[in-house]
Amino acid sequence: MTDEFDISRIDDVIHGRVRLGIMAVLSGVDSADFNTLKARLQATDGNLSVHLRKLEEAGFVAVTKRFEGRKPLTEASMTPVGRRAFVAYLDAMQGLVGKA
Amino acid sequence: MTDEFDISRIDDVIHGRVRLGIMAVLSGVDSADFNTLKARLQATDGNLSVHLRKLEEAGFVAVTKRFEGRKPLTEASMTPVGRRAFVAYLDAMQGLVGKA
Repeated sequence: MTDEFDISRIDDVIHGRVRLGIMAVLSGVDSADFNTLKARLQATDGNLSVHLRKLEEAGFVAVTKRFEGRKPLTEASMTPVGRRAFVAYLDAMQGLVGKA
Repeated sequence: MTDEFDISRIDDVIHGRVRLGIMAVLSGVDSADFNTLKARLQATDGNLSVHLRKLEEAGFVAVTKRFEGRKPLTEASMTPVGRRAFVAYLDAMQGLVGKA
C-alpha cells in the first residue's frame, strides 16, 4: 500500500483538520452559512474565519456576505476548482485508507 | 457522508503529513531504518527526527539506536498502541474517502 500512498500528493491546504472538515461539509451542499459550519465543526469564530480565508485564498471556497434583514449572513460554497482539488485529495488518501 | 465524518475523531498526532507517512510506511513492515524513511518520505534529517520524536512521545512508534559495525543505525517500528491509533485514524477517515 505504501507504493500507492505518497504524502507529496496530499494538498496541505485541504489536509488541515478544520479545513478538511469545511471541505467535507461543503462537498455535500450548495452552500453553508457561517453558524452552520461553526456548529458542525465545533470551531470558534476566529478559528473558522482563519481557515475559511485560507480556503478562499486558494480559490477552493467562495465566501459571500449579505444581510438577511438586519443580520449579516456569511455563506460559503465550494468552487469548481475546490471540488477538483478535493477529489484529488480524496484520491491521494484512498491508497492509505484502503488498508484499513 | 458528512454524518459519518467527524473531525473530532481525527488524531492530530497521526494526521500531520509527515507523521501520517511514517505511520503508513511502518504499518507495512516490522521496522524501517532512518534512511529508508527519509527516502520514502523525501524528508530532511531534522524534519524526520522531529516527527519521529513526536510519534515516540505519543507511544505510537518505538525508536531504537544501535551500531552496525561503525555506523549508527536508527530503527523505528510501530507499537501495538500505535497500530490501534492508526486503525482508529483510518476508520475516522473512511467516511470521508468513501465519498470519492
